[in-house]
Amino acid sequence: MPAPETPKLTVDIIIELTDQPGRPILLIERKNPYGWALPGGFVDVGESLEQAAVREAAEEISLPVTLIVLLGCYSSPDRDPRGHTVSAVYIAEANGEPCAADDAANVQIFLPETLPGMLAFDHALILTDYLNYRQNNKLTPLRNQD
Amino acid sequence: MPAPETPKLTVDIIIELTDQPGRPILLIERKNPYGWALPGGFVDVGESLEQAAVREAAEEISLPVTLIVLLGCYSSPDRDPRGHTVSAVYIAEANGEPCAADDAANVQIFLPETLPGMLAFDHALILTDYLNYRQNNKLTPLRNQD
Repeated sequence: MPAPETPKLTVDIIIELTDQPGRPILLIERKNPYGWALPGGFVDVGESLEQAAVREAAEEISLPVTLIVLLGCYSSPDRDPRGHTVSAVYIAEANGEPCAADDAANVQIFLPETLPGMLAFDHALILTDYLNYRQNNKLTPLRNQD
Repeated sequence: MPAPETPKLTVDIIIELTDQPGRPILLIERKNPYGWALPGGFVDVGESLEQAAVREAAEEISLPVTLIVLLGCYSSPDRDPRGHTVSAVYIAEANGEPCAADDAANVQIFLPETLPGMLAFDHALILTDYLNYRQNNKLTPLRNQD
């Protein structure tokens, strides 16, 4: 029996710069759909989620990262207007100077208190869960069971 | 740009029977590959992971479940000999009498101290992480970053 079609699998990474005051995080300005977004991308067949997260971070911001914790999985069918994707979101640490691998991309450093308003996809939700974890050290309870 | 191929997405559910002494869990005896396995299956396009977990539990053991926590994501490329699948594994609660929806399937109740030796896929690893969580209320740190 051939395996059925399932949602596409992605990873997103919340990268904390541990050597900068206030431990800021990194966001990338996207064109389509427009908005600030976490670094991330599709998981390749043959790599683990963790390997995909480390690879995507290196590709997008040119820094090695260490994954700390799985913040959660985000899977609402309408989270990406282009099609159903499920994202495993990791919190990671890095230090050094981030640099957009793609010249066209705008990578910026944000303190948790001053995140931009215009966030792509469901990244506002993800970052709300992240801020809650950062403050209370607790993961957000499960949603979407109904 | 068409979305690239990614690993197939599944859910597995560790179902605790809260109305039975010792809070046992449920496993299903599989034929191919042979072994005892957690209830679970492929995620459909258009449903969240949580919806898929609740649906699969209902389909496989004929009991409604409430998801409690995401134990983790298991994504090693070799975890299923038939192809690369990534599983989001939930701990859930149910009560009542489980009943295999498929007559051919053998659903059995196991106390955590007496799990069967012959476990399919990477479910021995998953259940080790589960037992650790059950004892210490702590999720297993991330693996597979290299």
